[in-house]
Amino acid sequence: MTRTGVWLIGARGNVGTMAIVGARAIATGHATTAGLVTERPPCTTLKLPGFDDLVFGGHDITTTGISSRAQLLAANGTPPSSTVEAVSDELERIDDRIRTGTITGSGSAIEALAEQSINGESLSSMVEQLRRTYRVFVEKHDLGRLVVVNVASTEQPLEQPARFDSRATIERAIETDDRTLPASAVYAYAALLDGHPYINFTPSTGASLGGLQELAIERNVPHMGRDGKTGETLVKSALAPLFAGRNLRVTSWSGHNILGNNDGRVLEDETHQAGKLESKGGVLEELLDGTFHNQVRIDYAPPLGDWKTAWDDIRFSGFLDTEMSMRFTWDGSDSALAAPLVLDLVRLIAHADEHGEGGPQPQLASFFKSPLGVDEHDLSRQFSMLERYVERHAEEHP
Amino acid sequence: MTRTGVWLIGARGNVGTMAIVGARAIATGHATTAGLVTERPPCTTLKLPGFDDLVFGGHDITTTGISSRAQLLAANGTPPSSTVEAVSDELERIDDRIRTGTITGSGSAIEALAEQSINGESLSSMVEQLRRTYRVFVEKHDLGRLVVVNVASTEQPLEQPARFDSRATIERAIETDDRTLPASAVYAYAALLDGHPYINFTPSTGASLGGLQELAIERNVPHMGRDGKTGETLVKSALAPLFAGRNLRVTSWSGHNILGNNDGRVLEDETHQAGKLESKGGVLEELLDGTFHNQVRIDYAPPLGDWKTAWDDIRFSGFLDTEMSMRFTWDGSDSALAAPLVLDLVRLIAHADEHGEGGPQPQLASFFKSPLGVDEHDLSRQFSMLERYVERHAEEHP
Amino acid sequence: MTRTGVWLIGARGNVGTMAIVGARAIATGHATTAGLVTERPPCTTLKLPGFDDLVFGGHDITTTGISSRAQLLAANGTPPSSTVEAVSDELERIDDRIRTGTITGSGSAIEALAEQSINGESLSSMVEQLRRTYRVFVEKHDLGRLVVVNVASTEQPLEQPARFDSRATIERAIETDDRTLPASAVYAYAALLDGHPYINFTPSTGASLGGLQELAIERNVPHMGRDGKTGETLVKSALAPLFAGRNLRVTSWSGHNILGNNDGRVLEDETHQAGKLESKGGVLEELLDGTFHNQVRIDYAPPLGDWKTAWDDIRFSGFLDTEMSMRFTWDGSDSALAAPLVLDLVRLIAHADEHGEGGPQPQLASFFKSPLGVDEHDLSRQFSMLERYVERHAEEHP
Amino acid sequence: MTRTGVWLIGARGNVGTMAIVGARAIATGHATTAGLVTERPPCTTLKLPGFDDLVFGGHDITTTGISSRAQLLAANGTPPSSTVEAVSDELERIDDRIRTGTITGSGSAIEALAEQSINGESLSSMVEQLRRTYRVFVEKHDLGRLVVVNVASTEQPLEQPARFDSRATIERAIETDDRTLPASAVYAYAALLDGHPYINFTPSTGASLGGLQELAIERNVPHMGRDGKTGETLVKSALAPLFAGRNLRVTSWSGHNILGNNDGRVLEDETHQAGKLESKGGVLEELLDGTFHNQVRIDYAPPLGDWKTAWDDIRFSGFLDTEMSMRFTWDGSDSALAAPLVLDLVRLIAHADEHGEGGPQPQLASFFKSPLGVDEHDLSRQFSMLERYVERHAEEHP
Repeated sequence: MTRTGVWLIGARGNVGTMAIVGARAIATGHATTAGLVTERPPCTTLKLPGFDDLVFGGHDITTTGISSRAQLLAANGTPPSSTVEAVSDELERIDDRIRTGTITGSGSAIEALAEQSINGESLSSMVEQLRRTYRVFVEKHDLGRLVVVNVASTEQPLEQPARFDSRATIERAIETDDRTLPASAVYAYAALLDGHPYINFTPSTGASLGGLQELAIERNVPHMGRDGKTGETLVKSALAPLFAGRNLRVTSWSGHNILGNNDGRVLEDETHQAGKLESKGGVLEELLDGTFHNQVRIDYAPPLGDWKTAWDDIRFSGFLDTEMSMRFTWDGSDSALAAPLVLDLVRLIAHADEHGEGGPQPQLASFFKSPLGVDEHDLSRQFSMLERYVERHAEEHP
Repeated sequence: MTRTGVWLIGARGNVGTMAIVGARAIATGHATTAGLVTERPPCTTLKLPGFDDLVFGGHDITTTGISSRAQLLAANGTPPSSTVEAVSDELERIDDRIRTGTITGSGSAIEALAEQSINGESLSSMVEQLRRTYRVFVEKHDLGRLVVVNVASTEQPLEQPARFDSRATIERAIETDDRTLPASAVYAYAALLDGHPYINFTPSTGASLGGLQELAIERNVPHMGRDGKTGETLVKSALAPLFAGRNLRVTSWSGHNILGNNDGRVLEDETHQAGKLESKGGVLEELLDGTFHNQVRIDYAPPLGDWKTAWDDIRFSGFLDTEMSMRFTWDGSDSALAAPLVLDLVRLIAHADEHGEGGPQPQLASFFKSPLGVDEHDLSRQFSMLERYVERHAEEHP
Repeated sequence: MTRTGVWLIGARGNVGTMAIVGARAIATGHATTAGLVTERPPCTTLKLPGFDDLVFGGHDITTTGISSRAQLLAANGTPPSSTVEAVSDELERIDDRIRTGTITGSGSAIEALAEQSINGESLSSMVEQLRRTYRVFVEKHDLGRLVVVNVASTEQPLEQPARFDSRATIERAIETDDRTLPASAVYAYAALLDGHPYINFTPSTGASLGGLQELAIERNVPHMGRDGKTGETLVKSALAPLFAGRNLRVTSWSGHNILGNNDGRVLEDETHQAGKLESKGGVLEELLDGTFHNQVRIDYAPPLGDWKTAWDDIRFSGFLDTEMSMRFTWDGSDSALAAPLVLDLVRLIAHADEHGEGGPQPQLASFFKSPLGVDEHDLSRQFSMLERYVERHAEEHP
Repeated sequence: MTRTGVWLIGARGNVGTMAIVGARAIATGHATTAGLVTERPPCTTLKLPGFDDLVFGGHDITTTGISSRAQLLAANGTPPSSTVEAVSDELERIDDRIRTGTITGSGSAIEALAEQSINGESLSSMVEQLRRTYRVFVEKHDLGRLVVVNVASTEQPLEQPARFDSRATIERAIETDDRTLPASAVYAYAALLDGHPYINFTPSTGASLGGLQELAIERNVPHMGRDGKTGETLVKSALAPLFAGRNLRVTSWSGHNILGNNDGRVLEDETHQAGKLESKGGVLEELLDGTFHNQVRIDYAPPLGDWKTAWDDIRFSGFLDTEMSMRFTWDGSDSALAAPLVLDLVRLIAHADEHGEGGPQPQLASFFKSPLGVDEHDLSRQFSMLERYVERHAEEHP
């Protein structure tokens, strides 16, 4: 397939770095394809961009380079040091393509993290700058397509997002330099306007605004979001259907998350946490009958580094109102869980773009906590949606 | 709907007793319908026998009556004492309908439990006696239909079950009084021969023999089994698809079950445990890719009474071979988890019988650890099979 | 022994009610002595007040009587309904002795709970009223001794407690009607002034103020506090010495508590939670070497009722800096864990008073999260302190 | 202090290798002293052999050298590869000092592991050979003292150990070549006879026989055993006193261990497991009142490698017979938990030998599951025994 650009907003973060290291390690034969949805049936029958066809670039607001970040991750357990070493030259080369990002309208916790940022004279000039950056990258690397992916830290939630329900209101905001429009939406606007597929892997606003969805339809650009489903919520979406299907009435579902990376640090800030908790808790509201005590906690525990642990306590009433319970713990590397999904999404949205499938992509619902335009939260049924998409393509393009 | 007989093999056991108490409590307004799959969508659109239309009888090999058993269960936490009291007169009446059962070919751990049993002069005479017992019950209570359900303790596994692959071989075994044919198969044969729907809620042989399946087809009798999916395996069938779907490679899944009831006592015997472990572990083999360490332990812990706890430890490799893990505990009342499923199955198989749907019933796959004739073990997809069955009936009989 | 009055501040709460039900059930032969430290060696060699010698009274700010509260607890799992019924007449009689309490200086979350309260014209008049109440109770029931016990909901922490470091400063506050002096201290002052032993089972201020400790010494009255050690912290005080003793360096100890009773409701308020978290986390600071991430969460989960679950996640570095971990869950009835300790403390402080042992009582350290005047937090060593106290008495009064 | 030889029976195993790597890494400044009891108070006031004064040698029955074993361990997570590299030259040198060991009377699971072994013409000749080996090592390395430590895989339990209750019976067994006398006892005999302090870190027989204890007293040689307390049992000895001290009546304590190293493989064999389970379960019998369901499982899970996980489920009755529960998981590297204790024990028994303290060493009780001659199993009180030993020495040798 044609060369595909992958433009990561937050490229120097843990997820961005892990995705880049992994893609290069797979491309050069230094790693297996474990954890990649696109590398097992049904997706293996699709014609997707190869790992060696992915060309990485991106924006960031920190100055620690990808190579250093990768070494820090390795010291924390994953990726293996030997893998980082095997691709370290390429990491340096990719890091040279990272441009300084913007944090306009992102909130104080993001501001506290920023070691560098651009703010533009106006939103209009910033949009022009972003478009130019994307275009230059495409030209320089002779790319057939550019996928823009948001893997940056979580912004504060946007108040009254309905203000931006049409393309017109968004463009007016840009013209009038309305700085409540957050960075994630600005990045998405610049991408969609020029036909670059867009993925929002975070709970930030991104392309979820009505006006951006309108723009994507107009330009027939595929996009999807939001908030990658990597751990506790992934398990919730697999387990909750069990309780619902068996008419076991959940009375209390209480989740406690501890993690030690920047994500945890930003989420310590209650404003930033709000959006995250909504998508984490919301899955259960959709999947379970009736009312129940639904609580999610996220706590920052620095010694855990990039690792996270979720502990969930579930109480339910069964036959003759018998009170029973289930608990689980989930221990994983935040980035090692997220990064392969980023690569899967890039490959699958490139495929959609190739086939002229613009707008939100429901077949990608299983990847997200809050899949745009999809009400189905049952993980197995979301997997079935992807399976049916693949089958349809197999029939149409045998 | 017409009155439906429910003939429980093992009626005085915990599951049988809990099912009877529950059905009567619901029928008389003393309990909610929590835990019943047939009391939530999609099944609520089917025309099913009402709880007050169910007439209970059965066989047993113990002498402790249903009423006493119910009180023992209540002292152990569930059902509530007040519920037992509310239906205690009826329990006495139902207990009068319990006949002494047989344990022929069941193995030594079952023999150790038996306080009473019939052995018959020959298998032929025993078959005739069972058919007569079923017939008398139907006539006496003016039943439109009789469903026979095996909820007895687990027999030892049958060696070389392929010996009984045709109706002819089974009937020859009965004629020649081949006592390796186990009680569960004898009960099933007598039921199917006279057109009584049959459910095997246990890992025992029951109607799984080829010859009994042939008979069921010939007589067009619905039947299903085996081994009710109530706890650890239920969770496995919800969780394993998550790992498979995400290409997270499970390297070790180790389950430890502790329980304190007769089930635990019988399963302490390694011969009897073999069959159980096969169906508990097998679900994972079906759902997960590749090879992995797959272990299940069942230990008898008398202080737990009718409660059981499963602890499962799951290790998996993800992106860049990162080792991660998940653990869960499941705490429930064995009988309170099983009993509603027995009632659901009775109602749903009566529905199938009413509509002339003989043979194995794939729409009931979600209820069993080893669903007869069904390869799908993904719980959500099994639920979908039931949903589609209901939808089909809704279309056909609007 | 002589009849001993037990005056419970918060008598109608879960802990007060459970203690009263239990004491009466034991006295009348309706319950075993499980959970009582004073009913196993070494304490069994001490001459302590019998359960039938305890005469209960108290203050409260709610109007739901002890008998109703006991029934609510029974419906939540413990005590058994039959136990409550067996002593229900006595519960009514004891409830008649409950007087309306004060919540002066207790904070807004307590105010929100209060269905009734006295506020007095002034602190002076309130102190006089309390003294009279105590005295009347002693005279009416012909008591040889009155032990005052605080089992009320947690007040907000007192700011700058050092203001009240001498008896003089406290008495000046009372004279000048300084309403920052909290209710728990006022109750304690009135008790100590007239020689009534005092126990603070809560994290509230109570007799911890320097001025009240001075008063206790002057009057030679025994007292002890604070914050009964019933669950997570109890486990911490048993486990932390393992890590310290083995030079396993804890890097992170993260605890999450969920509970559903009024305690949980009050502690949802961050102001009130502060004091609790301090005593829960502080134990670890005392027991472990070095610095580490030490976090405690308390969340209100109404469906749990009087039950609480703690989940603790412990990370530690061992040999060659190997990272390892331990997790535990603790599931218990808050009141059933606390109530026997209240009875133990009453009996043991009565014993101290009988032997003229005034001031703080270090032998009772094992009962408290923050034992007054004791630096030892290792549970086994705290048990040894009690053992040595008993041995000393055995030698002195053989 | 003088140079101290450390002769490891099973030197090439995980524990032996980890101890050697660790000692050398600490001696050469490549590792911290985390996990070493002797490197924190109170032991830091004792005059103990330095890490650079320890000279390693040993026996083994496998041919994979220490250096290769260390690399395998590093690939499994610990020690860090960089640590292994830093000392790899020394590992080669030490491996040259390893002599082929014996497995006489050790049982079939050990035989299955052996890649090489000596069997001797007779036990007498084997004893002579061992004595010579010890002596040659002492002379060659100019050692002031040689400590012999058993860290080999667990033998099958010895039947009727009372047969060897006197030195005479043991020596007769050697003379008559009674091959029921297991290897561990033969090694111990040869050591004690020539005054070499001996430590049995395994559940094997070692010096626990009455006749060997008699010999140790006669020669005034210090020795101690058996079965290093590194994980689940360590936690039990810290937690059980909590339940006992609070009169919380444990009804069921069920432990499930999974581990993936050779220890797990040998313990899969039921004969070999028997001894291990006895010492793991026995601790609870000593610490808890009354009777209870006490079960321990050890399962071999190869994917875990050198790591082990214990899951314990504890049920207890409290006040008014309220049923409550606690669960814990313990995740650790088997060798990283054991190895520092081996070094601690070598240093502390060298100290005892230096001060002429022969026979069993009760101050070392905290290190063992079944401490020879010590009834105290409460971990904190065992730590106190060590503390008092240190204090006594501080007083005697200020």
